[in-house]
Amino acid sequence: MLKVAILGGSGYTGAELARILLAHPHVELTAVTSERLAGTLLSDTFLNFRNTDLKFEPLDLKVLTKKADLFFLCLPHKASQETVARLHTAGKKVIDLSADYRLKNAGVYEKWYQTPHDYKHLLKKAVYGLPELYREKIKNASIIANPGCYPTSAILGLTPIISQDFIDKDSVIIDSKSGTSGAGRTPAQPFMFCEVNDSVKAYGITVHRHTPEIEQELSSVAGKKLNVVFTPHLIPMDRGILSTIYIRLTKNISLPNVQKIYRDFYKDEPFVRVLKNGVYPITKAVKGSNYCDISIFLDKRSAKGKTLIIVSTIDNLIKGSSGAAVQNMNIMYDFNETSGLTSPPPSP
Amino acid sequence: MLKVAILGGSGYTGAELARILLAHPHVELTAVTSERLAGTLLSDTFLNFRNTDLKFEPLDLKVLTKKADLFFLCLPHKASQETVARLHTAGKKVIDLSADYRLKNAGVYEKWYQTPHDYKHLLKKAVYGLPELYREKIKNASIIANPGCYPTSAILGLTPIISQDFIDKDSVIIDSKSGTSGAGRTPAQPFMFCEVNDSVKAYGITVHRHTPEIEQELSSVAGKKLNVVFTPHLIPMDRGILSTIYIRLTKNISLPNVQKIYRDFYKDEPFVRVLKNGVYPITKAVKGSNYCDISIFLDKRSAKGKTLIIVSTIDNLIKGSSGAAVQNMNIMYDFNETSGLTSPPPSP
Amino acid sequence: MLKVAILGGSGYTGAELARILLAHPHVELTAVTSERLAGTLLSDTFLNFRNTDLKFEPLDLKVLTKKADLFFLCLPHKASQETVARLHTAGKKVIDLSADYRLKNAGVYEKWYQTPHDYKHLLKKAVYGLPELYREKIKNASIIANPGCYPTSAILGLTPIISQDFIDKDSVIIDSKSGTSGAGRTPAQPFMFCEVNDSVKAYGITVHRHTPEIEQELSSVAGKKLNVVFTPHLIPMDRGILSTIYIRLTKNISLPNVQKIYRDFYKDEPFVRVLKNGVYPITKAVKGSNYCDISIFLDKRSAKGKTLIIVSTIDNLIKGSSGAAVQNMNIMYDFNETSGLTSPPPSP
Amino acid sequence: MLKVAILGGSGYTGAELARILLAHPHVELTAVTSERLAGTLLSDTFLNFRNTDLKFEPLDLKVLTKKADLFFLCLPHKASQETVARLHTAGKKVIDLSADYRLKNAGVYEKWYQTPHDYKHLLKKAVYGLPELYREKIKNASIIANPGCYPTSAILGLTPIISQDFIDKDSVIIDSKSGTSGAGRTPAQPFMFCEVNDSVKAYGITVHRHTPEIEQELSSVAGKKLNVVFTPHLIPMDRGILSTIYIRLTKNISLPNVQKIYRDFYKDEPFVRVLKNGVYPITKAVKGSNYCDISIFLDKRSAKGKTLIIVSTIDNLIKGSSGAAVQNMNIMYDFNETSGLTSPPPSP
Repeated sequence: MLKVAILGGSGYTGAELARILLAHPHVELTAVTSERLAGTLLSDTFLNFRNTDLKFEPLDLKVLTKKADLFFLCLPHKASQETVARLHTAGKKVIDLSADYRLKNAGVYEKWYQTPHDYKHLLKKAVYGLPELYREKIKNASIIANPGCYPTSAILGLTPIISQDFIDKDSVIIDSKSGTSGAGRTPAQPFMFCEVNDSVKAYGITVHRHTPEIEQELSSVAGKKLNVVFTPHLIPMDRGILSTIYIRLTKNISLPNVQKIYRDFYKDEPFVRVLKNGVYPITKAVKGSNYCDISIFLDKRSAKGKTLIIVSTIDNLIKGSSGAAVQNMNIMYDFNETSGLTSPPPSP
Repeated sequence: MLKVAILGGSGYTGAELARILLAHPHVELTAVTSERLAGTLLSDTFLNFRNTDLKFEPLDLKVLTKKADLFFLCLPHKASQETVARLHTAGKKVIDLSADYRLKNAGVYEKWYQTPHDYKHLLKKAVYGLPELYREKIKNASIIANPGCYPTSAILGLTPIISQDFIDKDSVIIDSKSGTSGAGRTPAQPFMFCEVNDSVKAYGITVHRHTPEIEQELSSVAGKKLNVVFTPHLIPMDRGILSTIYIRLTKNISLPNVQKIYRDFYKDEPFVRVLKNGVYPITKAVKGSNYCDISIFLDKRSAKGKTLIIVSTIDNLIKGSSGAAVQNMNIMYDFNETSGLTSPPPSP
Repeated sequence: MLKVAILGGSGYTGAELARILLAHPHVELTAVTSERLAGTLLSDTFLNFRNTDLKFEPLDLKVLTKKADLFFLCLPHKASQETVARLHTAGKKVIDLSADYRLKNAGVYEKWYQTPHDYKHLLKKAVYGLPELYREKIKNASIIANPGCYPTSAILGLTPIISQDFIDKDSVIIDSKSGTSGAGRTPAQPFMFCEVNDSVKAYGITVHRHTPEIEQELSSVAGKKLNVVFTPHLIPMDRGILSTIYIRLTKNISLPNVQKIYRDFYKDEPFVRVLKNGVYPITKAVKGSNYCDISIFLDKRSAKGKTLIIVSTIDNLIKGSSGAAVQNMNIMYDFNETSGLTSPPPSP
Repeated sequence: MLKVAILGGSGYTGAELARILLAHPHVELTAVTSERLAGTLLSDTFLNFRNTDLKFEPLDLKVLTKKADLFFLCLPHKASQETVARLHTAGKKVIDLSADYRLKNAGVYEKWYQTPHDYKHLLKKAVYGLPELYREKIKNASIIANPGCYPTSAILGLTPIISQDFIDKDSVIIDSKSGTSGAGRTPAQPFMFCEVNDSVKAYGITVHRHTPEIEQELSSVAGKKLNVVFTPHLIPMDRGILSTIYIRLTKNISLPNVQKIYRDFYKDEPFVRVLKNGVYPITKAVKGSNYCDISIFLDKRSAKGKTLIIVSTIDNLIKGSSGAAVQNMNIMYDFNETSGLTSPPPSP
């Protein structure tokens, strides 16, 4: 049994990770930290937990490094930087769910996150933990930068075609709709029930921090630097992201041919499902699972070339964060890649 | 007091119209029809109604034409065609909330609605009832084709700039999010609570019937035939539409300049509000009102020209249908344009 | 025009009051206070506001007493005590929406609210502002203690029968379900969207502070001291309270007879509607209005005497607080009692 | 591997059962029937399904009896009667999720369900499938009458004390709040999103069909015939039942003593959790699981004896139907009782 610990376990991401790890057949969860809740039972805060007597403990690396070999970090960005570095120095493996090691270019990080990066030398070591792109590198990684939720939906939705010559790589528009758990568990006025319920709003227009992360990975696949237009929206639901992606065609290609490219690209992927032609993805069908559903449509009516419309759905707390982290762990430790992630999701 | 009747009053649109008209200072609502509910009180079906003893009655034009001078038609498309024609022949004024008289080109109607149009000669008489575009024509119209909900949000969001030379008219993408009341009150599996709640989905991709309506009006303003990409989404909320609109710039123009164009365009409009720079529109702020809120953003990062992002919000049952119908009536009968439409909306 | 001010206007209650008062035909809203938001526009915080340029200002009584003759206090309990007293001394009329002057017995207040009452002499002067019980006293009151939301639903649901000899006055059980706006606008973890959405919970069992308020008024009507069992529940909705009330019969009486007692009792009340036999009240039918809907059922099967089941619904922010406050003002100033409160509520 | 079939698999209960059975380690799901959907893939209707190529087939018992040894019936009441009988005659075991075999007294069934019972001789053979009460009988049963959702929450909430001498057995009031999936998947106006969302209502007051089922089982445990007052409410959430239960004490007993009775009673139960003193149950904590959470409170203030308040929560589609059915199967076939039911539920 692999011994693992969660640092920063009082939020939705930490709780979801704990829930999955507690039921994982090859893992022993030995510690979960929270300064505020230290000494209290996890099950007192997360009433859905049944199978554990674990208590939150303070984040004391001297103690913790004796308790686990793999560390999941659910700390706020910036706070993660040093902890990752210290754990790495101590010879531990780390899956960092913050944004601190996702952007390869420290300058880009510093601009978007408005804070210096003090461990630039580790950026090269960190592997962007999207198995569909980097499975081989993940196997031997010691630091995983676990992808953001919006980027996961966008990158999986675009990767199969972004390097193709029949699309205009500079025309990508990503219109994303997210459930409210993405905003975290810390009380804040805009995420109070009465503010979110029965309403929808756009936010972070042109300035959301997931933008450079999407661009980094799409540029890498495309083989050229590209920019995207990315607009997130807040939806009155707990979980789920649906990204509606628009991209112009530069050459004639039929919808079945594009769909075939997607099916071929993802044919061995355990957690990506390319839906049948004409099926509309719905977040409820992936809620509670590690799946990403993708459906592809073609608008032939556009005056200026046809437009591909790709709809991609995930559960932001699972494939968009904690489930992806477990999938990365499974790959790193040569477990079955789907271990702990196979429960079919309840619906409705 | 103007005598008015509602034909087809058992749905959400009819009920909302009745609610507004019952409180309107210059109007007497004399009849509301429903075949299924004929003989029963409106207030038995719509428990929010207090100030009426009105009963539903059958749609018998011989009876009804004696009761009212202005008719609001909330019938299904196709069913509206003949009733509009008969009322017109009888010398009555009509505000038709169906799609039957919105599209000037009968061929386009027949293609998208898959049904013949039997009263083509009346299409020319019908005025598209968007006051912000056609106020003068509405004044003297005898048939008003009341706009669709998505088109209202899209057209109001784009009209101030679609004729400008600094935008690429062929690059319009409209990503709309709608509450569920837009689907009507008739029971249907996809709109059951458990299917819609806590989830989001896209639908009608590339095939939604509001597409040609949007294109007709934008082409008219732009002075050239244009096509748009339009994708609707279903949101777990009762009311509201938020349309996120993307359009490429072809020339340099600053965001304040674009915002000024909008402010100037709408400066005398009683129901359109251009929000302050940086304010994110939210449907809850217009829910229950006849307002349209618009906010404009500029993405300067796009590789291929900058992209304007326009966010437009309305209440689909008010500015998107019944409120707009009353606004049209106010204009037709020279009432104060805001009569019956001024109650500030409750929130949350 | 009566000049009025709102002290503590940054919460849901204050906002709802401002919304109603801004549209009231006989009132000028001259000031709204908020320490935190002082200097900013009301419409920057409450995006649904259109018809005002009012700004929040600090709570400075020297300034404010020159601006208004009637003061609505939406301050937290305890904070209201002194402000009420100072305004009273200054000869101003006050409608206090806090709990500070509702309980006639200062000892009961001090026990349930865990804080001393420093202005006991004013408790006698304060009139409990439920028009259906105290209309005559309200006319001449200088201090109105505006009722709590749960008490309003419970007291209106029970008043017509609690003094009757066919019921067991000691058997009252009130099971209430409330929307989340009742918890206020201040950020707190239990009222975050993801905590409340798609779930229901009981809270405050046996200890909720509205219990003594309900008991005080029911005891007064019953003519004997009585206790009730009161259990509130949190529902994933913005507004609305539905109270299901159980009370044992001690003598035989038919359901139509009980319903007649209710209809007679409320026959002249503009805002209480006793529903037809068998109609199930629903909060959506009163949401956005000042109405209280009541429906009465009789369970004849109980072994130990029959049980009356009374269901009472209100909008907690209107009839349960701000609307009631305006109704009280209308009575105090001899305006039409329904002024400003007649807009039929939108639904759905 | 035990071969099982689901008859009537197109509703929420059938789908949830299929979901659990497809992941069950000891079971092969060989057939799922639906007349309407026959020939189509389960995964076309239930997009959350991944691990199956099963298609719906018609309900042809000649074919089906060759395919399975245990049959789960998710047919409407009345329709189940004959199918249970025919399967029983064919030597098959049956778990019937309808109400047809729950009531031991055919007259009571016929009165509440308004339909004759044509297989009265089988009522004696049918075991009421609540493991916490009838585990031993379930082991050898050939027909299981799977309990209703409301009865499960009520009976589990009351069983530990209903036979005690310190309570008034004739004073039971059950106020239940249910998610909307309990109403089934068939389209109906009252369960449309816009009717249910952001609202709460009571329904079925004094006439709900689960009443005699609750009474039958509580009477059996109490050792005397008793009646209960039962009021269901519809909540804007997908899943979950919270029952707030009121019962008068006739003797003095302390809350800790009552709580101890509950803890002792359920100490070996894998799916019932008696919460710590003061913890408020919340449906979200059991959503997606087979757990029942129970919390006990004591109101000492009541004039007429103290009142116990018991709050009981379940997921209506799992512990309230499909999960309970699987638990029953596990007991019948001597599988581990928790097989297939151990996934900790996601939250939020």
